Amino acid sequence: MPASHILLIRCSDEPGLVFKITGVLFAHGLNIIRNGEFVERADNTFFMRTEFAGPFEAETLTGELRQALPAAADIRLSDNRPKNIVLMATKEHHCLSELLVRHAFGELNARVLAVISNYPKLGDITRQFGLPFHHVSHEGQTREAHEQEVLAVLAGYQPEFVVLAKYMRILSSEFVAHYANRLINIHHSFLPAFVGASPYAQAYARGVKIIGATAHFVNEQLDQGPIIAQSVIPIDHTQSASEMAQAGRDVEKIVLARSLQLVFAEQVFVHHNKTIIFD
Amino acid sequence: MPASHILLIRCSDEPGLVFKITGVLFAHGLNIIRNGEFVERADNTFFMRTEFAGPFEAETLTGELRQALPAAADIRLSDNRPKNIVLMATKEHHCLSELLVRHAFGELNARVLAVISNYPKLGDITRQFGLPFHHVSHEGQTREAHEQEVLAVLAGYQPEFVVLAKYMRILSSEFVAHYANRLINIHHSFLPAFVGASPYAQAYARGVKIIGATAHFVNEQLDQGPIIAQSVIPIDHTQSASEMAQAGRDVEKIVLARSLQLVFAEQVFVHHNKTIIFD
Amino acid sequence: MPASHILLIRCSDEPGLVFKITGVLFAHGLNIIRNGEFVERADNTFFMRTEFAGPFEAETLTGELRQALPAAADIRLSDNRPKNIVLMATKEHHCLSELLVRHAFGELNARVLAVISNYPKLGDITRQFGLPFHHVSHEGQTREAHEQEVLAVLAGYQPEFVVLAKYMRILSSEFVAHYANRLINIHHSFLPAFVGASPYAQAYARGVKIIGATAHFVNEQLDQGPIIAQSVIPIDHTQSASEMAQAGRDVEKIVLARSLQLVFAEQVFVHHNKTIIFD
Amino acid sequence: MPASHILLIRCSDEPGLVFKITGVLFAHGLNIIRNGEFVERADNTFFMRTEFAGPFEAETLTGELRQALPAAADIRLSDNRPKNIVLMATKEHHCLSELLVRHAFGELNARVLAVISNYPKLGDITRQFGLPFHHVSHEGQTREAHEQEVLAVLAGYQPEFVVLAKYMRILSSEFVAHYANRLINIHHSFLPAFVGASPYAQAYARGVKIIGATAHFVNEQLDQGPIIAQSVIPIDHTQSASEMAQAGRDVEKIVLARSLQLVFAEQVFVHHNKTIIFD
Repeated sequence: MPASHILLIRCSDEPGLVFKITGVLFAHGLNIIRNGEFVERADNTFFMRTEFAGPFEAETLTGELRQALPAAADIRLSDNRPKNIVLMATKEHHCLSELLVRHAFGELNARVLAVISNYPKLGDITRQFGLPFHHVSHEGQTREAHEQEVLAVLAGYQPEFVVLAKYMRILSSEFVAHYANRLINIHHSFLPAFVGASPYAQAYARGVKIIGATAHFVNEQLDQGPIIAQSVIPIDHTQSASEMAQAGRDVEKIVLARSLQLVFAEQVFVHHNKTIIFD
Repeated sequence: MPASHILLIRCSDEPGLVFKITGVLFAHGLNIIRNGEFVERADNTFFMRTEFAGPFEAETLTGELRQALPAAADIRLSDNRPKNIVLMATKEHHCLSELLVRHAFGELNARVLAVISNYPKLGDITRQFGLPFHHVSHEGQTREAHEQEVLAVLAGYQPEFVVLAKYMRILSSEFVAHYANRLINIHHSFLPAFVGASPYAQAYARGVKIIGATAHFVNEQLDQGPIIAQSVIPIDHTQSASEMAQAGRDVEKIVLARSLQLVFAEQVFVHHNKTIIFD
Repeated sequence: MPASHILLIRCSDEPGLVFKITGVLFAHGLNIIRNGEFVERADNTFFMRTEFAGPFEAETLTGELRQALPAAADIRLSDNRPKNIVLMATKEHHCLSELLVRHAFGELNARVLAVISNYPKLGDITRQFGLPFHHVSHEGQTREAHEQEVLAVLAGYQPEFVVLAKYMRILSSEFVAHYANRLINIHHSFLPAFVGASPYAQAYARGVKIIGATAHFVNEQLDQGPIIAQSVIPIDHTQSASEMAQAGRDVEKIVLARSLQLVFAEQVFVHHNKTIIFD
Repeated sequence: MPASHILLIRCSDEPGLVFKITGVLFAHGLNIIRNGEFVERADNTFFMRTEFAGPFEAETLTGELRQALPAAADIRLSDNRPKNIVLMATKEHHCLSELLVRHAFGELNARVLAVISNYPKLGDITRQFGLPFHHVSHEGQTREAHEQEVLAVLAGYQPEFVVLAKYMRILSSEFVAHYANRLINIHHSFLPAFVGASPYAQAYARGVKIIGATAHFVNEQLDQGPIIAQSVIPIDHTQSASEMAQAGRDVEKIVLARSLQLVFAEQVFVHHNKTIIFD
């Protein structure tokens, strides 16, 4: 398959947008591989994602699109190459292992630069896959000091995305602000049910019959960021909170991996507190 | 199939309970069709549900079981006949229609005595199925006065269960107390997400990727009663709150019907705020 | 909501199609509500479905589109009004009841003209909903004679679609040819597993852990027509074939209803032996 | 948790079995942790699985059970320790990686002794996890000669179970006979749909809307062995066969892992061509 590019447009809606945009692409002789549009009626916003192939000069193309589109249109051209990412984890291995394995076999559409953890436990599996592991302990530190240390390590890698693969510490608004819409978390419940700590214990206490997991962008409010993907499994009264946790792991890792696949392929727009996801 | 009976036992756990209970049944020459046990470790409570066939004298059997079991054991013998129920609804027809159709074809394991609604809208479909319809309007009435009127209608039917098939008014603790563990509601969200009014609007606003429905016993706290059954469907950003509501209807009616099937077949124990459900 | 129209296009793929089509719509000042495109790479076929609003003259619009598109383009304009349909059933009521209830409450996007059955059993429920019921018995008749009689009844109604709502007789190629791509069936298995008679008995014998249902267009080969929608539920070893059949009913009726929703909203293209379905 | 043991009984059904079996356990003062029974009505066979704790002498216990049960009862006591297994794979890594990761973190309830493959590709990931890798090429060999070589390697490990983690060669009846009911395969379709080669290509050609995976015991008939677990995911017309294959991988590995969890915890009885699975 030849290298493809992705055009991402967000602007206020008006008649003729698809016609104008595809007109620019057609005039350049570019071949549309896949195309999707969506209008959010609530605030009259137009979204379009177009995957195309063919030679073009980025500045010219963007300039012509800017001419054709409403003022303040958000136009982005992506070359669809693997993203540079850093993974963060705590003690549980399942999400980290899942991503390390996919990375090792070229299935993650990303380059994992390093793993950061507040515990040493996952160092072995990380190094086994030939990747740098940074143990940044939070013990005996203020949250601010600890986050500064993590940010310093991250700064050394300049990642495009930071993935919280069961990183079990709450991040401050200041930390989050450094990676706005670039910080992805897996929460082990079907949000907005069971926000915060110990969702499986909460689910057990409530007696629910289904549990789930939620991958979302992190914003300054705990477990309130834009949801990317969710999935669920049935449970019953015979399962203890820890058995639920065990059953939930498979859901968590698959949901996280799927959300990364969507984000790294530029299929996800963040719009206010929601995501718009193109096939 | 010959008439079967169901034995339901709840008591504090101790060694030998299954042996002792099955011993009593065996001594009476009763044939066990299906048997299930469960021990809730959290409070050491033993539950058993046994479906059996054969002739027996209820008082003798219960007496012998009482001898064999710990003091304060809860022993119940059910003859597994259709339950007498009343349905309550408001304006949406889908849950009511579902139950009326199943009832008409003998699939509900219940005898619907009447339908009560605070609006006249569903009178036609109810009468079409040959059932009494009581329009008890809440307009111009206090909640207390309205509930008294509904309770009076219910009292005339002496139902074993009252099913809230999209009855959209919140019931007072006093009302609920009349039908403890006998009042079943369908809530149009995946509880505990989106408690209260307009769950689909809440789901839309939160940008979730899955919506659901929850059938539960009603207790004095809004949407907090023991959950019987839940189910979900995937949604995406293209669906408005009203499109979610439309998609959710199929889930709601099937979940409600399934929960009634479980309850009416005596498969459900309510234990504190949870249900224990036997296959 | 103002009346919307749907434009359906199928032609061989070439660069610029979206640009050209949206150009025609834009020139007419039509407002695009929803738009989807798909290219089947296997045979280089382009599909587009556009929902739009605004005044237009059909012949002019179609003429301009024909100018803009490759020769032999298949262009269809639909006014998106309820379809005229006839339902066929045998003895099982659940799919028929589901459709009759939806129809009664204006949720089917179709006008049910009549019900035809080879048994009298479902006459009561049909008449209860105020619809004509035709009992066309197959007993003592050749298949040909029976089908001729059914076709004669159908001819009297001129339906756009015929829905087999658990019609349990195999239809001849001759019959099917009368309603090519307009005859929809619900098969009570997850096709292509368990083609033909008694799929639940087949599923029980094979010991599967999931069962399903398939809504599909009927073609001349038994259970081989283009699939519109499928759904499944988990089962286990404790369920007999008849318990599977009972559990499967809920899946069947919901899948059939969903497939009709898709077809009647002009969201489905039949392409060779497959369907292309737009959101 | 103290060490628990598992009692597995299969015999012809007759009244009083549960009473008699629990009587023996009660007389020994053993503590029942979990208990399940099932009667297959088709051939009147009784199955029981009891997890219990406490000291006992195996021969005495078994002898007393044999006295209490019908002649020819199949009685098995398992000490519930991790099983010794060998994994077989070809080129695809996802199932193998999944099992290697779970094994490394003590989640497999098994001891992986070695990996055998007919290609060298998965040697690196295997050795990375510190396990022996045997490349037994089939090239230039008859199937018989190749299988003899594989059997020789297996014989050196004496595994209790052999897991085909995407081993893409069909095994002869002779091979299968060596590991009757101990050879587990993952098939990348929702059996019995798409038996044999290239199920995703078959699924694509048929235009199904759901694909799945099936974990099953291997018997002498291709893809016809007793099914342990199945799972599915929705797909649509936009996905090519290779995209289906990619999406299917997550289902395959999770279904395989879940089936091993069930088998290794002695929750699965094989009965004729089916499995009976206890919670």
